[in-house]
Amino acid sequence: MTTLIGRGVVTGVALGRIKRPAQDLTAWLDRYVPGTVDEEAARLERALAGAKGQLLAIRSGPAVDDTLAAIMDAHLLMLDDPGLIEGIGEKIREGIGAPPAVIEACEAYAGLFASLDDPYLRERAADVRDIGRRVAGLLLGVDRENVEPPETPDDGAQDAQNVQDSHGAASAVVLCAPDIEPSVVAAYPPGRLQALLLGQGSTTSHAVIIAKARGIVTVVGLGDALEQIPDGAEVIVDGATGEVSLSPPAPERHAALARIAEQAERRQRDLAEAALPAVTRDGVTVQLAANIGVPGEVENARALGAEGVGLFRSEFLFMGRDTFPSEEEQFLAYRQAAEGCGGHICVIRTLDIGGDKPLPHLAIAKEHNPFLGWRAIRISLERTELFRTQVKAILRAGCHGKVAIMLPMVISAGEIRQARALVAEAATELTAEGRPFAAHVPVGIMIETPAAAATAHLLAPACDFFSIGTNDLVQYTLAVDRGNAKVASLYSHFHPAVLRLIDATIQAARRQGIWVGMCGEMAGDPLATPLLVGMGIDELSMSAPSIPRVKAVIRRLSTAEARSLRDAALALDDAAAIRAYLEEMRTPPSA
Amino acid sequence: MTTLIGRGVVTGVALGRIKRPAQDLTAWLDRYVPGTVDEEAARLERALAGAKGQLLAIRSGPAVDDTLAAIMDAHLLMLDDPGLIEGIGEKIREGIGAPPAVIEACEAYAGLFASLDDPYLRERAADVRDIGRRVAGLLLGVDRENVEPPETPDDGAQDAQNVQDSHGAASAVVLCAPDIEPSVVAAYPPGRLQALLLGQGSTTSHAVIIAKARGIVTVVGLGDALEQIPDGAEVIVDGATGEVSLSPPAPERHAALARIAEQAERRQRDLAEAALPAVTRDGVTVQLAANIGVPGEVENARALGAEGVGLFRSEFLFMGRDTFPSEEEQFLAYRQAAEGCGGHICVIRTLDIGGDKPLPHLAIAKEHNPFLGWRAIRISLERTELFRTQVKAILRAGCHGKVAIMLPMVISAGEIRQARALVAEAATELTAEGRPFAAHVPVGIMIETPAAAATAHLLAPACDFFSIGTNDLVQYTLAVDRGNAKVASLYSHFHPAVLRLIDATIQAARRQGIWVGMCGEMAGDPLATPLLVGMGIDELSMSAPSIPRVKAVIRRLSTAEARSLRDAALALDDAAAIRAYLEEMRTPPSA
Repeated sequence: MTTLIGRGVVTGVALGRIKRPAQDLTAWLDRYVPGTVDEEAARLERALAGAKGQLLAIRSGPAVDDTLAAIMDAHLLMLDDPGLIEGIGEKIREGIGAPPAVIEACEAYAGLFASLDDPYLRERAADVRDIGRRVAGLLLGVDRENVEPPETPDDGAQDAQNVQDSHGAASAVVLCAPDIEPSVVAAYPPGRLQALLLGQGSTTSHAVIIAKARGIVTVVGLGDALEQIPDGAEVIVDGATGEVSLSPPAPERHAALARIAEQAERRQRDLAEAALPAVTRDGVTVQLAANIGVPGEVENARALGAEGVGLFRSEFLFMGRDTFPSEEEQFLAYRQAAEGCGGHICVIRTLDIGGDKPLPHLAIAKEHNPFLGWRAIRISLERTELFRTQVKAILRAGCHGKVAIMLPMVISAGEIRQARALVAEAATELTAEGRPFAAHVPVGIMIETPAAAATAHLLAPACDFFSIGTNDLVQYTLAVDRGNAKVASLYSHFHPAVLRLIDATIQAARRQGIWVGMCGEMAGDPLATPLLVGMGIDELSMSAPSIPRVKAVIRRLSTAEARSLRDAALALDDAAAIRAYLEEMRTPPSA
Repeated sequence: MTTLIGRGVVTGVALGRIKRPAQDLTAWLDRYVPGTVDEEAARLERALAGAKGQLLAIRSGPAVDDTLAAIMDAHLLMLDDPGLIEGIGEKIREGIGAPPAVIEACEAYAGLFASLDDPYLRERAADVRDIGRRVAGLLLGVDRENVEPPETPDDGAQDAQNVQDSHGAASAVVLCAPDIEPSVVAAYPPGRLQALLLGQGSTTSHAVIIAKARGIVTVVGLGDALEQIPDGAEVIVDGATGEVSLSPPAPERHAALARIAEQAERRQRDLAEAALPAVTRDGVTVQLAANIGVPGEVENARALGAEGVGLFRSEFLFMGRDTFPSEEEQFLAYRQAAEGCGGHICVIRTLDIGGDKPLPHLAIAKEHNPFLGWRAIRISLERTELFRTQVKAILRAGCHGKVAIMLPMVISAGEIRQARALVAEAATELTAEGRPFAAHVPVGIMIETPAAAATAHLLAPACDFFSIGTNDLVQYTLAVDRGNAKVASLYSHFHPAVLRLIDATIQAARRQGIWVGMCGEMAGDPLATPLLVGMGIDELSMSAPSIPRVKAVIRRLSTAEARSLRDAALALDDAAAIRAYLEEMRTPPSA
């Protein structure tokens, strides 16, 4: 048995057969008969529209998660990139057909990204190629979504059967490639793709991000060793150790199958409990809610045990279009989400855009440090017409369900007062217009700047609730852009400063008598759950697939234990030591 | 009397005669006789070297302040810009003489900056033009440094006499221009240039930054109104209200002169006290030290009352060159600074560079958010050979004066432990090499990330001292890049979160029994002095010209009053309210 070692980035054990994504369009390209320049331009136009339609469909599909949604948004934006479109048009005018024009222009554009010094941008090259292959596929009549998964369900009958029995997948696939396009990973139905083996070493490529979100065991940085693995070979992948064992003998196979079965059992147990309340052994309830990007995600989230929505990102309404969405359009989306929550609260975050998430129709100058720039509430308080329109839509949706307004990137009480004045104006306008709206919609803030966390007790009197956004809070507190591979290893939500700021925020909210939740990635990290419960968090809002596990952890906790865990963790001086302590104290998976 | 109103950015009252900078090189350009292409290229080479020499001379001159030094560094970097140099060379090869080639290439380059969306970069256009005029001036034999100040000292005899009597300047100049080049402002001898009136509205142009540092009363945003002011007209400028009064009648003149006299008197009183210790009325001493960029600045700083150096920025040794400085070169610089401190401590900050302050010989990839990227200690702990060389030079300098090592951008105790291990390695190497060095050099850290401030009590046991770097601390805490005009107004060191983090840092240091200082801009803000003394700060390190005023404030304080001021300020929830409170409680200028 040969064992290769890479870098495990998504833990878990998987057993499956090696498959290499069929990404070669050559056969189709050879058969393509180009028309005149005008005909090719018209075909391109249709294919671009079709690609947008596909992306929007994935974007609002039932099994979509935040991560995939955000990636699809990025792809949608690329489809609108004037530089790229113009590049394709130029090639068509040179007389080559639309499909090779798309492939070549995207390849050139990807080459541009790939040549950049910036590791983050370099990885966007894969996205551009992905987009190009999607559009070319449409032009060539290739159904990409169905081409990638294995052609025949009956290959390797006996072994596949075993695997199927133990973790319920139709036939377990281990995808293997130097690098991989995000939509190839996204196209697999849940459960079918068990593991991902990549030659490249990045942990921030979109494919890896999707794998993380979906719990697909992933090992990266395998380099040329990948070529040693024959197509169709059976492998065991251990995402914790980064080990890939080729054609394992029977004892190893059985051990792996046992571990996979244990994983699957735990997952099933978690899912079985998903509908139960998230209540500790001593009767303290924690609200578990979902982060969503489109209203259609609510249903799936509730099936996974979400009690309402703790973060509805409203950005999707504003992206991939030329104008701002009308009040009516927004109202319909917010109403759908609010109704979907079935009596639970739906917290709608007001527009959170800025230098790093630009909108073509909102002129934002290029910034040196967009994370420290003009974004979120700072834009809303200057472009008040945008904010008022959004607030009016939310207040109106409040007649159809419980909604709340959440302000992003707040650093001072003055901003909350200004925003509240605008909410009051919006209400006055609605009254004047004679439209029905909810009069008492709670207004809360994200605690995602060190400024807000360190003065939470000063901000609390102006708020109906807090929700801690750990992603930004960690970035600002540690001065670490986690998208920057050079410093990403410094990023940790277990840093003692971060924990202190979170703890202070929770205590400030409790003293003020308002609820306090969390909607950053930390909220969905089961390792952090006992700590947060020990601090007294009221609500955790996360990507829906994380809910069952976090709920299971809560149901096995006692708050007294959680509190002493909190005290012990806060006494440690180092993120790694805190993480190790939490690992050590973790309730065993079988408990 | 006509009164124009702009935006006051440097307070104070000034009375003087309008002068427009003579920036026109046309007469010289017309007379220039170009040689062959090779001759012109050789002349250019010499002029570039000459310009570097001028900039380095300004850079290390006696009256240089941090601000000017940093700006000269930026100009030095521009002189090395391959794009710019190549642009000039191309024009010379096209057959035009070197001076017009320089002017045209710089104009084109400036145009590029001016066309950018980014307000910060847009303002760098003025720097490129400045550089171009400096180099062209050298080629043309124009002495720019002497051309700008007024030609004749005897114009407007009577009025100039009055002004001279009241504030000791030879003849008071009020410079007036749509925009102005930083070196024009820098070229005026101290006291001669009383006020600056600008058409443009920016407060972050280099000219304005120098004016701030030198206390030159400045009003910006006057737009086309400037054209109404005749050359040579007498004006009163009030930097607090932004008012510019043209040809004021006698009563206004006398009132202005009285206020100017009062300002000058206070300044003189401050200077007279500069050599006295900075001790409160009840006998508590605060160490007042200087921030320096080159060893030569120490002398001037001591003349202004500095007791040692609280921040020696070591970057100058690394900038504007192709290789890293040797240990010996660094040793000589550190020794000079340490010896200059005359028994007081000289705190040397280890290399603080990164994405925003790149070095050509250290490959740093372009970063999306350089302030949240690979910089300072993060580079030192990876490029350990750079760090060890620097530490060895500092340890050796410790035989010639009291030195200390200060680590920038620390976020965790682990980083301090790693750095200390490298310091120990450096000592071992020096022992092996048989070189003399100081065995017990204190190692401290900058507290400039929210992470460090919020965990100061966890970091203190690993440190010999703290120095709070408010500039970065404010940026990270508030998520505001103050170089970004869209959000710069949110930047304030009086934000309640910043004050809380500072207070917590000071208390943590006191409990640990280590000294705690401050070396950001806040340390030189006399409005902040009582607050910081109330919190218990041990040391304040600032740009040397600020020392006399801050010392005067300290000498009029009682710590009991300062402590109650601190308590009252910390109870307020808003930066503006805190500033207003401090203004209200300020010891009257005449006290």
